[in-house]
Amino acid sequence: MGELKIDFDRGQGLIPAIVQDWKTGEVLMVAYMNAASWAKTRETGKACFWSRSRQKLWLKGETSGHLQIVKEVYLDCDNDALLLKVEQIGGAACHTGYRSCFYRRIVNGRTEEVGTRVFDPKEVYGG
Amino acid sequence: MGELKIDFDRGQGLIPAIVQDWKTGEVLMVAYMNAASWAKTRETGKACFWSRSRQKLWLKGETSGHLQIVKEVYLDCDNDALLLKVEQIGGAACHTGYRSCFYRRIVNGRTEEVGTRVFDPKEVYGG
Repeated sequence: MGELKIDFDRGQGLIPAIVQDWKTGEVLMVAYMNAASWAKTRETGKACFWSRSRQKLWLKGETSGHLQIVKEVYLDCDNDALLLKVEQIGGAACHTGYRSCFYRRIVNGRTEEVGTRVFDPKEVYGG
Repeated sequence: MGELKIDFDRGQGLIPAIVQDWKTGEVLMVAYMNAASWAKTRETGKACFWSRSRQKLWLKGETSGHLQIVKEVYLDCDNDALLLKVEQIGGAACHTGYRSCFYRRIVNGRTEEVGTRVFDPKEVYGG
Protein backbone atom coordinates (compact mmCIF):
# COMPACT_ATOMS: atom_id res chain seq x y z
CA MET A 1 0.00 0.00 0.00
CA GLY A 2 1.32 3.45 -0.89
CA GLU A 3 0.65 6.94 0.30
CA LEU A 4 -2.06 8.76 -1.61
CA LYS A 5 -0.89 12.04 -3.06
CA ILE A 6 -2.93 13.62 -5.80
CA ASP A 7 -1.17 16.38 -7.70
CA PHE A 8 -3.75 19.09 -8.24
CA ASP A 9 -1.12 21.77 -8.85
CA ARG A 10 0.00 20.80 -12.33
CA GLY A 11 -3.38 21.56 -13.87
CA GLN A 12 -3.98 24.76 -11.89
CA GLY A 13 -6.00 22.94 -9.25
CA LEU A 14 -7.89 20.63 -11.61
CA ILE A 15 -7.33 17.06 -12.70
CA PRO A 16 -9.30 15.07 -15.27
CA ALA A 17 -11.50 12.30 -13.92
CA ILE A 18 -12.48 9.67 -16.44
CA VAL A 19 -15.74 7.93 -15.73
CA GLN A 20 -16.16 4.35 -16.86
CA ASP A 21 -19.11 2.01 -16.48
CA TRP A 22 -17.99 -0.46 -13.81
CA LYS A 23 -19.59 -3.43 -15.58
CA THR A 24 -19.30 -2.84 -19.33
CA GLY A 25 -16.09 -0.78 -19.33
CA GLU A 26 -17.70 1.85 -21.55
CA VAL A 27 -16.14 5.28 -21.09
CA LEU A 28 -19.07 7.51 -20.14
CA MET A 29 -17.50 10.95 -19.78
CA VAL A 30 -14.57 12.95 -18.55
CA ALA A 31 -14.84 15.88 -16.19
CA TYR A 32 -12.62 17.78 -13.79
CA MET A 33 -12.07 17.55 -10.06
CA ASN A 34 -10.47 19.97 -7.67
CA ALA A 35 -9.54 19.01 -4.12
CA ALA A 36 -12.99 19.92 -2.78
CA SER A 37 -14.88 17.84 -5.34
CA TRP A 38 -12.58 14.89 -4.74
CA ALA A 39 -13.19 15.20 -0.99
CA LYS A 40 -16.93 15.26 -1.58
CA THR A 41 -16.73 12.26 -3.90
CA ARG A 42 -14.87 10.28 -1.24
CA GLU A 43 -17.20 11.38 1.50
CA THR A 44 -20.45 10.63 -0.32
CA GLY A 45 -19.50 7.82 -2.69
CA LYS A 46 -21.12 9.77 -5.53
CA ALA A 47 -19.18 11.43 -8.32
CA CYS A 48 -18.78 15.14 -7.73
CA PHE A 49 -16.85 17.35 -10.14
CA TRP A 50 -15.82 20.95 -10.56
CA SER A 51 -17.81 22.70 -13.27
CA ARG A 52 -15.45 24.88 -15.27
CA SER A 53 -18.32 26.74 -16.93
CA ARG A 54 -20.30 27.39 -13.75
CA GLN A 55 -17.23 27.60 -11.48
CA LYS A 56 -18.83 25.56 -8.74
CA LEU A 57 -19.05 22.07 -7.31
CA TRP A 58 -21.18 19.85 -9.48
CA LEU A 59 -22.75 16.74 -8.05
CA LYS A 60 -23.26 14.73 -11.21
CA GLY A 61 -26.97 13.99 -11.56
CA GLU A 62 -28.18 16.61 -9.09
CA THR A 63 -30.70 17.92 -11.65
CA SER A 64 -31.47 14.77 -13.64
CA GLY A 65 -31.27 12.29 -10.79
CA HIS A 66 -28.71 10.39 -12.83
CA LEU A 67 -26.14 10.05 -10.08
CA GLN A 68 -22.95 8.06 -10.44
CA ILE A 69 -22.31 5.62 -7.63
CA VAL A 70 -18.56 5.21 -7.32
CA LYS A 71 -17.47 1.59 -7.14
CA GLU A 72 -13.70 1.95 -7.58
CA VAL A 73 -11.19 4.73 -8.12
CA TYR A 74 -7.78 4.43 -9.78
CA LEU A 75 -4.92 6.93 -9.83
CA ASP A 76 -2.54 7.29 -12.73
CA CYS A 77 1.25 7.06 -12.68
CA ASP A 78 1.70 10.85 -12.58
CA ASN A 79 -0.78 11.32 -9.74
CA ASP A 80 -2.71 13.81 -11.83
CA ALA A 81 -5.64 11.88 -13.29
CA LEU A 82 -8.34 9.67 -11.82
CA LEU A 83 -10.35 6.83 -13.28
CA LEU A 84 -13.72 6.25 -11.63
CA LYS A 85 -15.63 3.05 -12.16
CA VAL A 86 -19.25 3.82 -11.50
CA GLU A 87 -22.77 2.54 -11.57
CA GLN A 88 -24.61 5.06 -13.73
CA ILE A 89 -28.08 5.62 -12.31
CA GLY A 90 -30.64 6.04 -15.10
CA GLY A 91 -28.34 4.37 -17.60
CA ALA A 92 -27.09 7.54 -19.30
CA ALA A 93 -24.26 9.88 -18.39
CA CYS A 94 -24.77 12.49 -21.08
CA HIS A 95 -27.18 15.39 -20.78
CA THR A 96 -28.18 14.70 -24.41
CA GLY A 97 -29.67 11.39 -23.32
CA TYR A 98 -26.91 9.23 -24.72
CA ARG A 99 -25.39 6.57 -22.53
CA SER A 100 -21.91 8.04 -23.05
CA CYS A 101 -20.85 11.61 -23.80
CA PHE A 102 -18.62 10.08 -26.48
CA TYR A 103 -21.51 9.23 -28.76
CA ARG A 104 -19.96 10.65 -31.94
CA ARG A 105 -17.29 8.86 -33.91
CA ILE A 106 -14.93 10.88 -36.07
CA VAL A 107 -14.79 9.51 -39.60
CA ASN A 108 -13.05 11.21 -42.51
CA GLY A 109 -13.06 14.60 -40.83
CA ARG A 110 -16.73 14.48 -39.90
CA THR A 111 -18.73 13.13 -36.98
CA GLU A 112 -21.35 10.41 -36.96
CA GLU A 113 -23.63 9.55 -34.09
CA VAL A 114 -23.15 5.98 -32.99
CA GLY A 115 -24.16 5.99 -29.33
CA THR A 116 -27.26 4.67 -27.65
CA ARG A 117 -29.89 7.20 -26.62
CA VAL A 118 -31.40 6.20 -23.31
CA PHE A 119 -33.67 9.12 -22.46
CA ASP A 120 -35.26 12.20 -23.99
CA PRO A 121 -33.57 15.26 -22.49
CA LYS A 122 -36.80 17.28 -22.65
CA GLU A 123 -38.47 14.84 -20.29
CA VAL A 124 -35.60 14.84 -17.83
CA TYR A 125 -34.61 18.50 -17.78
CA GLY A 126 -37.88 20.09 -18.92
CA GLY A 127 -38.74 21.32 -22.41
CA MET B 1 -22.88 13.20 -40.40
CA GLY B 2 -21.97 16.42 -38.61
CA GLU B 3 -19.28 18.99 -38.96
CA LEU B 4 -16.19 18.33 -36.90
CA LYS B 5 -15.34 21.20 -34.58
CA ILE B 6 -12.98 20.54 -31.73
CA ASP B 7 -12.93 23.24 -29.08
CA PHE B 8 -9.30 23.67 -28.09
CA ASP B 9 -9.87 27.13 -26.62
CA ARG B 10 -11.64 26.21 -23.43
CA GLY B 11 -8.60 24.42 -22.03
CA GLN B 12 -6.08 27.00 -23.22
CA GLY B 13 -5.32 25.07 -26.37
CA LEU B 14 -5.34 21.60 -24.80
CA ILE B 15 -7.97 18.91 -24.57
CA PRO B 16 -7.77 15.59 -22.74
CA ALA B 17 -7.51 12.49 -24.90
CA ILE B 18 -8.48 9.26 -23.19
CA VAL B 19 -6.82 6.18 -24.56
CA GLN B 20 -8.68 2.90 -24.37
CA ASP B 21 -7.66 -0.54 -25.57
CA TRP B 22 -9.81 -1.16 -28.62
CA LYS B 23 -10.40 -4.81 -27.79
CA THR B 24 -10.58 -5.08 -23.99
CA GLY B 25 -11.96 -1.62 -23.23
CA GLU B 26 -9.30 -1.08 -20.57
CA VAL B 27 -8.49 2.59 -20.05
CA LEU B 28 -4.77 2.83 -20.68
CA MET B 29 -3.95 6.49 -20.06
CA VAL B 30 -5.04 10.05 -20.50
CA ALA B 31 -2.89 12.73 -22.10
CA TYR B 32 -3.38 16.09 -23.78
CA MET B 33 -3.65 17.14 -27.38
CA ASN B 34 -3.34 20.53 -28.99
CA ALA B 35 -4.35 21.21 -32.58
CA ALA B 36 -0.93 20.20 -33.92
CA SER B 37 -0.83 16.85 -32.12
CA TRP B 38 -4.38 16.11 -33.23
CA ALA B 39 -3.40 16.89 -36.83
CA LYS B 40 -0.40 14.60 -36.52
CA THR B 41 -2.52 11.82 -35.01
CA ARG B 42 -4.96 12.05 -37.91
CA GLU B 43 -2.21 12.19 -40.48
CA THR B 44 -0.18 9.25 -39.17
CA GLY B 45 -2.81 7.08 -37.48
CA LYS B 46 -0.58 6.91 -34.40
CA ALA B 47 -1.38 8.66 -31.14
CA CYS B 48 0.52 11.91 -30.78
CA PHE B 49 0.08 14.14 -27.74
CA TRP B 50 1.33 17.43 -26.37
CA SER B 51 3.73 16.95 -23.50
CA ARG B 52 2.94 19.54 -20.85
CA SER B 53 6.20 18.86 -19.02
CA ARG B 54 8.44 19.01 -22.08
CA GLN B 55 6.28 21.52 -23.97
CA LYS B 56 6.60 19.67 -27.25
CA LEU B 57 4.85 17.19 -29.50
CA TRP B 58 5.07 13.69 -28.12
CA LEU B 59 4.64 10.73 -30.40
CA LYS B 60 3.61 8.10 -27.87
CA GLY B 61 6.12 5.25 -28.01
CA GLU B 62 8.84 7.18 -29.85
CA THR B 63 11.41 6.07 -27.26
CA SER B 64 10.03 2.72 -26.17
CA GLY B 65 8.64 1.61 -29.51
CA HIS B 66 5.29 1.15 -27.81
CA LEU B 67 3.27 3.07 -30.34
CA GLN B 68 -0.50 3.33 -30.23
CA ILE B 69 -2.24 2.51 -33.49
CA VAL B 70 -5.47 4.49 -33.58
CA LYS B 71 -8.47 2.38 -34.55
CA GLU B 72 -11.32 4.78 -33.74
CA VAL B 73 -11.76 8.26 -32.32
CA TYR B 74 -14.80 9.63 -30.52
CA LEU B 75 -15.63 13.23 -29.63
CA ASP B 76 -17.58 14.20 -26.52
CA CYS B 77 -20.76 16.26 -26.33
CA ASP B 78 -18.89 19.47 -25.47
CA ASN B 79 -16.37 19.07 -28.31
CA ASP B 80 -13.52 19.33 -25.84
CA ALA B 81 -12.43 15.77 -25.13
CA LEU B 82 -11.44 12.83 -27.31
CA LEU B 83 -11.61 9.10 -26.77
CA LEU B 84 -9.09 7.07 -28.76
CA LYS B 85 -9.51 3.35 -29.20
CA VAL B 86 -6.07 1.98 -29.93
CA GLU B 87 -4.00 -1.10 -30.47
CA GLN B 88 -1.22 -0.75 -27.91
CA ILE B 89 2.02 -2.03 -29.41
CA GLY B 90 4.09 -3.90 -26.84
CA GLY B 91 1.06 -4.43 -24.64
CA ALA B 92 1.80 -1.68 -22.13
CA ALA B 93 0.97 2.01 -22.21
CA CYS B 94 2.70 3.06 -19.00
CA HIS B 95 6.38 3.95 -18.77
CA THR B 96 6.47 1.94 -15.53
CA GLY B 97 5.81 -1.22 -17.52
CA TYR B 98 2.20 -1.59 -16.47
CA ARG B 99 -0.41 -2.21 -19.12
CA SER B 100 -2.38 0.84 -17.94
CA CYS B 101 -1.20 4.04 -16.27
CA PHE B 102 -4.12 3.54 -13.88
CA TYR B 103 -2.46 0.61 -12.11
CA ARG B 104 -3.15 1.81 -8.57
CA ARG B 105 -6.51 1.55 -6.89
CA ILE B 106 -7.39 3.97 -4.11
CA VAL B 107 -8.60 2.13 -1.05
CA ASN B 108 -9.22 3.76 2.32
CA GLY B 109 -7.11 6.77 1.53
CA ARG B 110 -4.14 4.73 0.32
CA THR B 111 -3.09 3.23 -3.00
CA GLU B 112 -2.59 -0.41 -3.88
CA GLU B 113 -1.03 -1.71 -7.06
CA VAL B 114 -3.43 -3.89 -8.94
CA GLY B 115 -2.29 -3.60 -12.55
CA THR B 116 -0.44 -6.01 -14.75
CA ARG B 117 3.26 -5.36 -15.34
CA VAL B 118 4.14 -6.23 -18.92
CA PHE B 119 7.76 -5.11 -19.20
CA ASP B 120 10.73 -4.06 -17.10
CA PRO B 121 11.29 -0.33 -17.68
CA LYS B 122 15.06 -0.75 -17.29
CA GLU B 123 15.16 -3.01 -20.30
CA VAL B 124 13.05 -0.71 -22.43
CA TYR B 125 14.42 2.70 -21.52
CA GLY B 126 17.90 1.73 -20.32
CA GLY B 127 18.98 1.23 -16.69
